[in-house]
Amino acid sequence: MPKNVDAIPVKCSILGMSDHNKIYEFGVKTDGNAKMRDLLGGKGANLAEMARIGLPVPPGFTITTEVCSAFKANGERLPDGLMDLVKAAIKKVEQQQNKRFGDLHNPLLFSVRSGARESMPGMMDTILNLGLNDQSVQGFAEKTGNPRFAYDCYRRFIQMYGDVVMGVQAKDEHEEEPFDVLLNQLKKEEGAANDVDLSAEALQKLIGRYKELIKKSVGREFPQDVYAQLEGAIGAVFKSWNNERALIYRQRYNIPSEWGTAVNVQSMVFGNMGNNCATGVAFTRNPANGKHEFYGEYLINAQGEDVVAGIRTPQPIKALEQDMPDAYRQLVEVCRILEDHFCDMQDFEFTIEQEKLYMLQTRNGKRTGLAAVRIAAEMVEEKRITQEEAIKRIPADSISSLLVPVFDESRKKDLKQLAVGLAAGPGAACGKVVFSAKAAESAHARGEKVVLCRIETSPEDIRGMLASEGILTSRGGVSSHAALVARQMGKVCVCGAGSLHIDYGTKTIQVADTTIKEGDYISIDGTTGEVFLGEIATVPSEVNRVLAGEIEAKESDVYRLFSTIMGWADHFRKLGIRTNSDSPKQAHQALLLGAEGIGLCRTEHMFFESDRIDFVRQMILATTVEDRIAALAHLKPLQRGDFEAIFREMKGLPVTIRLLDPPLHEFLPNTADAIEALSKKIHIPAEAIQQRVQSLHEQNPMLGHRGCRLGITYPEITTMQASAIFEAVAQVQSEGIPVEVEVMIPLIGFVGELKHQAALIHEAAQKVMMEQKADIHYKVGTMLELPRAALIADQLAETAQFFSFGTNDLTQTTLGMSRDDSGTFLPEYIRDEVIRRNPFASIDVEGVGQLMQIAVQNAHKTRPDIKLGICGEHGGEPDSIKFCHRLGLTYVSCAPNRVPVAKIAAAQAALE
Amino acid sequence: MPKNVDAIPVKCSILGMSDHNKIYEFGVKTDGNAKMRDLLGGKGANLAEMARIGLPVPPGFTITTEVCSAFKANGERLPDGLMDLVKAAIKKVEQQQNKRFGDLHNPLLFSVRSGARESMPGMMDTILNLGLNDQSVQGFAEKTGNPRFAYDCYRRFIQMYGDVVMGVQAKDEHEEEPFDVLLNQLKKEEGAANDVDLSAEALQKLIGRYKELIKKSVGREFPQDVYAQLEGAIGAVFKSWNNERALIYRQRYNIPSEWGTAVNVQSMVFGNMGNNCATGVAFTRNPANGKHEFYGEYLINAQGEDVVAGIRTPQPIKALEQDMPDAYRQLVEVCRILEDHFCDMQDFEFTIEQEKLYMLQTRNGKRTGLAAVRIAAEMVEEKRITQEEAIKRIPADSISSLLVPVFDESRKKDLKQLAVGLAAGPGAACGKVVFSAKAAESAHARGEKVVLCRIETSPEDIRGMLASEGILTSRGGVSSHAALVARQMGKVCVCGAGSLHIDYGTKTIQVADTTIKEGDYISIDGTTGEVFLGEIATVPSEVNRVLAGEIEAKESDVYRLFSTIMGWADHFRKLGIRTNSDSPKQAHQALLLGAEGIGLCRTEHMFFESDRIDFVRQMILATTVEDRIAALAHLKPLQRGDFEAIFREMKGLPVTIRLLDPPLHEFLPNTADAIEALSKKIHIPAEAIQQRVQSLHEQNPMLGHRGCRLGITYPEITTMQASAIFEAVAQVQSEGIPVEVEVMIPLIGFVGELKHQAALIHEAAQKVMMEQKADIHYKVGTMLELPRAALIADQLAETAQFFSFGTNDLTQTTLGMSRDDSGTFLPEYIRDEVIRRNPFASIDVEGVGQLMQIAVQNAHKTRPDIKLGICGEHGGEPDSIKFCHRLGLTYVSCAPNRVPVAKIAAAQAALE
Repeated sequence: MPKNVDAIPVKCSILGMSDHNKIYEFGVKTDGNAKMRDLLGGKGANLAEMARIGLPVPPGFTITTEVCSAFKANGERLPDGLMDLVKAAIKKVEQQQNKRFGDLHNPLLFSVRSGARESMPGMMDTILNLGLNDQSVQGFAEKTGNPRFAYDCYRRFIQMYGDVVMGVQAKDEHEEEPFDVLLNQLKKEEGAANDVDLSAEALQKLIGRYKELIKKSVGREFPQDVYAQLEGAIGAVFKSWNNERALIYRQRYNIPSEWGTAVNVQSMVFGNMGNNCATGVAFTRNPANGKHEFYGEYLINAQGEDVVAGIRTPQPIKALEQDMPDAYRQLVEVCRILEDHFCDMQDFEFTIEQEKLYMLQTRNGKRTGLAAVRIAAEMVEEKRITQEEAIKRIPADSISSLLVPVFDESRKKDLKQLAVGLAAGPGAACGKVVFSAKAAESAHARGEKVVLCRIETSPEDIRGMLASEGILTSRGGVSSHAALVARQMGKVCVCGAGSLHIDYGTKTIQVADTTIKEGDYISIDGTTGEVFLGEIATVPSEVNRVLAGEIEAKESDVYRLFSTIMGWADHFRKLGIRTNSDSPKQAHQALLLGAEGIGLCRTEHMFFESDRIDFVRQMILATTVEDRIAALAHLKPLQRGDFEAIFREMKGLPVTIRLLDPPLHEFLPNTADAIEALSKKIHIPAEAIQQRVQSLHEQNPMLGHRGCRLGITYPEITTMQASAIFEAVAQVQSEGIPVEVEVMIPLIGFVGELKHQAALIHEAAQKVMMEQKADIHYKVGTMLELPRAALIADQLAETAQFFSFGTNDLTQTTLGMSRDDSGTFLPEYIRDEVIRRNPFASIDVEGVGQLMQIAVQNAHKTRPDIKLGICGEHGGEPDSIKFCHRLGLTYVSCAPNRVPVAKIAAAQAALE
Repeated sequence: MPKNVDAIPVKCSILGMSDHNKIYEFGVKTDGNAKMRDLLGGKGANLAEMARIGLPVPPGFTITTEVCSAFKANGERLPDGLMDLVKAAIKKVEQQQNKRFGDLHNPLLFSVRSGARESMPGMMDTILNLGLNDQSVQGFAEKTGNPRFAYDCYRRFIQMYGDVVMGVQAKDEHEEEPFDVLLNQLKKEEGAANDVDLSAEALQKLIGRYKELIKKSVGREFPQDVYAQLEGAIGAVFKSWNNERALIYRQRYNIPSEWGTAVNVQSMVFGNMGNNCATGVAFTRNPANGKHEFYGEYLINAQGEDVVAGIRTPQPIKALEQDMPDAYRQLVEVCRILEDHFCDMQDFEFTIEQEKLYMLQTRNGKRTGLAAVRIAAEMVEEKRITQEEAIKRIPADSISSLLVPVFDESRKKDLKQLAVGLAAGPGAACGKVVFSAKAAESAHARGEKVVLCRIETSPEDIRGMLASEGILTSRGGVSSHAALVARQMGKVCVCGAGSLHIDYGTKTIQVADTTIKEGDYISIDGTTGEVFLGEIATVPSEVNRVLAGEIEAKESDVYRLFSTIMGWADHFRKLGIRTNSDSPKQAHQALLLGAEGIGLCRTEHMFFESDRIDFVRQMILATTVEDRIAALAHLKPLQRGDFEAIFREMKGLPVTIRLLDPPLHEFLPNTADAIEALSKKIHIPAEAIQQRVQSLHEQNPMLGHRGCRLGITYPEITTMQASAIFEAVAQVQSEGIPVEVEVMIPLIGFVGELKHQAALIHEAAQKVMMEQKADIHYKVGTMLELPRAALIADQLAETAQFFSFGTNDLTQTTLGMSRDDSGTFLPEYIRDEVIRRNPFASIDVEGVGQLMQIAVQNAHKTRPDIKLGICGEHGGEPDSIKFCHRLGLTYVSCAPNRVPVAKIAAAQAALE
């Protein structure tokens, strides 16, 4: 199967691009800047920017993303002439660094690193210490006076290069990496506990074995020519844009595959030349909770990979103040410069080589939802950014993290606390223990909740992390892979819980005298770092407790953030925000969260309640209109009561009530036992029920006898529902509470259907107004959920006073794709990039969106001031909300807990 | 339930219309003419026209269809002032006739008859002899010197008025009409065998009883005031526009309910004043077979109703030459004048009152398909009309009647001939005997074929006639209701088979010593009038036998008509006509009928054949790609063979082959027994098959894993099918036969899908061309059967070289309506006029058509010369074909036997 369906027509224009767009230098002379992310990738652009503002950046150059596109279009070959440009750029670095690439005495070494437009941490490949070979390593040893260091660099280089460029890798996840096998074997032979205990001679032996392994595995020698090394490394990094991890990551974050990655070739500095060296990762603010504090970690005498890989658990950054006070002071100053310059929280990598600080990377730091909200709010207070910028900068979904349930603190004491690790991804997660990404995925597919427990995570684990409730590691710090990815995914994460002994072989966690087996439940609190045995009950979030009046607002810092951001969002947004609520309770919750009305009240949900389902069934089983009317008469007071309660709750805010929608078979039992039970209860023979169930069976119920089709064949249902609505309005108005009601007819496709149903509704309204001498203001409108309805919206608008897009069904019909059945092909479609996004998650703008646009234009022709809403699940999804804003809808309607998200997305849309 | 959803907004403009549009006179002064059908109805317009050209028309006036609209809008009340205009018009008729309406001595009588824009024979109500009351009947008796006649007129009048205007009717179809009860009772009392045996005195007694019946039934007296009689009659005729018969008829023939009917008030002439009087119905040509001969029938001493009602079987018109030679000669002359003037076959009513001829009506005669074709062709030969007019005048479906199977003459002798009646509707029909319209309907609903056997039919039988294969009556002539309606519906009909004794009570037909019971099979030949016991085998029509070379063309008169009309159609049409054929045999048949290519060859139909279904099942049950490829390898040579045979048949005409479309579950067995059998046959455990069947189950298979979604998740299927196609092309080309193949991908919704599948197809083509050193011309295109595809046709056209509208699925998705499931509501929709036509029968122009238009416009933007076709079932339906012509499609594709229909429709579209 072709992985990339776009590959067929070769993009020749890129092959013919000028040299100008291929390589950008940074260092003494810097070609790029921070705005050139598209061409240089984020890392390249920010290295250039840091060089420009005088921060200590080792010199190098960036090979652009356009070269990546050419590489792909060219059958994975580098464009002709590229290596000449690379050589020229290397010469300039040699001059600045006063070393020579491949020199036998004073070799210049390089790192070769990926860097896409959007950061994709750890997803692509990196090569360090490039430029060493059997000769130059000797010169390097002499020059640094540290043979052990030099040979360690060389063996690391061979290991990375062998793995990434030459493909010497374990066959599957159960096998140990072949280079690690050799390393561990040698350590055993030498009696060395740690890597650092290996002598220069031992490392030389290891280098020999590494080279043999490569020869044996791939039939070629490890290359001694440094330019050949470099060419291979550049190609490997470009190739890694399409590795599986990167594909999954791009799908998750909707990064287009055309973007490609840049390659950064930068002269090496060493954090592993001795104890006056260090390397670390730091954040200008706390990325887990957003607090304004210097946050990060470092390792003495190590290379950058060691920090991120979680091989050793690093020191918190504060400790550096003691270890290397000068470097620490420099770093604090760098924090200030970076935030002043970039106006956002920065996540940066540094290396201290013999007490000299070098900056290797900076980027806007990934952060949790809570941190995103806090940082944006506090940066406005600090006058670093405007309210507009703050709103634009908060991913709309972030606000949800302030609303998710948290552990009930009072219940924690009932459970055994196993450990306290680093609080790396806030929130509460319970689940069964699993030890591999694969196990997490299959448990998730079975519908089980799991916590993925790893010694440390690696980029291969990303699918498993997505499938888990939370991630727990025994090793690695707050900038480890696990923490980084978890924060970005909004997953709960506790990392570096060192007291846990995780054993993949026996699939157990040992902690003191407790053994936890695969499948046991644990609970992890990513806000405090606590790990508990068993399941802890959850309680509503602090924000929700403030809203419910259980905590005073002034006592809650999180509520202050929430209300600040909501205030700004309300100020900027143009779209109204309503909620989909079927009960007074839901309506109440939505009002607390700021809903301005109900956009969808589904009457059928009320039908399922235990005190009425039997009347509903009698109505369905009726064989005469009279019997049906009798059953409906029982339902009417119950429905009226429901509506009254909702109207009272909404106090005059608009309430859109949709008439009965689902096919009738959904209300009948379908097992023999249930039919028998019903038969006894309502005194209708089981065979009659069975027959009716069969007669209601449909080939394609989605496209069957439902929606207004029910109201047309059984007009008495529409009359009952309309009467119940208007009687409820009259009652609640008589209590002095205003009511604004909108009656919505589902599944309209034809003008005749709408006229038929509207006539019944108006008739019911007239009757109630006459009987009760009430003055009722109401609107009659319809869902737009069929392509035909969208196409004739101009005609429908002659009768309909409002429209609400039902994008769930509109997507199913426009795409001819049943959501329930799409599971057999849609995941494959997304994996193979046949389509970009799941159209049930985010509006398919090109298809469904085009129909919506036609409908909006046509509707406005007939009725320029028509109220237009959306009440499908897309109404709570940020990109869809932005599309609705661009379309000029009046409001979106979403689940109560999505109301804050919708407000932010609406404000962002208005600011775009 | 509101019957007419348009009724809500009152059309006030009609209420305010000027007097000018209310009443049009005909007679000495004539206001209207034949072109004013919309306003005067067909009958009124043609009465005016006949009066204009000097034919003997009794004077009267027409109340227009606009009054009908006002009547409906006005709550079924006549507009104010109408009766004043009526009175003025009556005055003028009185002057011409020298009689007075309601006069005690010389009363003027009127008929009051409906007359819509399109003739709806017998569907609405008529009142004759209006103007008689207890006084004037005496004067009428004196004036005519024929008291028996006068009282018979009066009792007929009371009977019709009581039924139609005052609603004195039987409660259901099993009950005898109450007036008939009284009539029969009196006949018994008087010992009278026939109505005519009743004396004037007996009739006076009957009149008294009729009036009592009315008083008792409706609580009001039969009105004595003649203007009150007239007002009631006019209202009743207007009301009858909406009676159930009329509604059904309008639905069947797509007559809009807004049109309304006119009312014709015409002075009475009497065919029942004695034996020098007659009344009849005649046609200027034979309406059953179209032959140019004077055709019709009459009754001596009768009123017009008696002929049509089939109470007596009338005389063939030829007999009039003997009975009344002068009148006959006049009639022949009238025939000539009518055809010269109207240039079409006329169906007219006449009355001879005391040897004087009066014309009561003329209209373009309803005719069978065969007659329509013959009359049009022969009128061109006679230079009465042009070829263009001939084509426009033939209902496209008519040509089908030349192609339907006929009885195998050689087999007739094997069966018992029961009777020979009048050949009133040509063709062959077999079925079970039923005796009521209701029985016909319910048998039809059970899927049984029936022949409706009635003594005579009445307008109430129309639903039952629609549900029958054929209609047989024992009474009534070729212009009886049964014959008339059967001819128009294209139903086989034998009428007036007087030797059959039909008994509704015992549900038997007695003929000589044979008794036929309900449920027995009979066969009727509507071309010869023969009736047989049992089922006769059918053979292809004469045209088909000529095409197949079984009969010489020059020996077949019908073939000459067929080929003449096809020649003209081919000359005028712009649309190409292709066929949907899945086998060489079908393709051959379609070619004989004039198809110009295959627009849809469904590969899955080949999959179901017995020699391959098991390989298909192995393919579906495969658990690895390798196993699937192995099963496909078995299928490939079989598919290749199918394609080769089709290509050989089509000899270079284009062949569009659609790749696998249906969901895979359709190929698997679903009963436990069938699964067990398959398990044994292909050595796969029954549980595994059962599991796969379950895993393939879908909620909404229409919207599920099918079409290109199969080819994307199982690309090896696409590759196999494409390879089989191209290998077949190479093989057939190597035999010296040209091939033009178009590979069509089903259910495309996204550009990514199309690119994915097109790449596989191009790859397969390249491979075959390389391997076989063949030069293959082919196109790759796609169905447009999802709204999304129609919306993005511009983008799809970048890759697709042709499109074919799949309007079956496009209708289902655009309307959100499953054809399989629509039976529970669609009939009700059509009955209540919520929608006008069944969108699965004729393209929903407003909705689906709008999407098609968008797609055509967009497709042309990208690829101005793109080939556009349609291959849904709509491709054989005349109105849909005309729409396709207007859209600018390249071709339509339909079932082989619809090709001639499509050609005529296409020619008509081009001439419109």
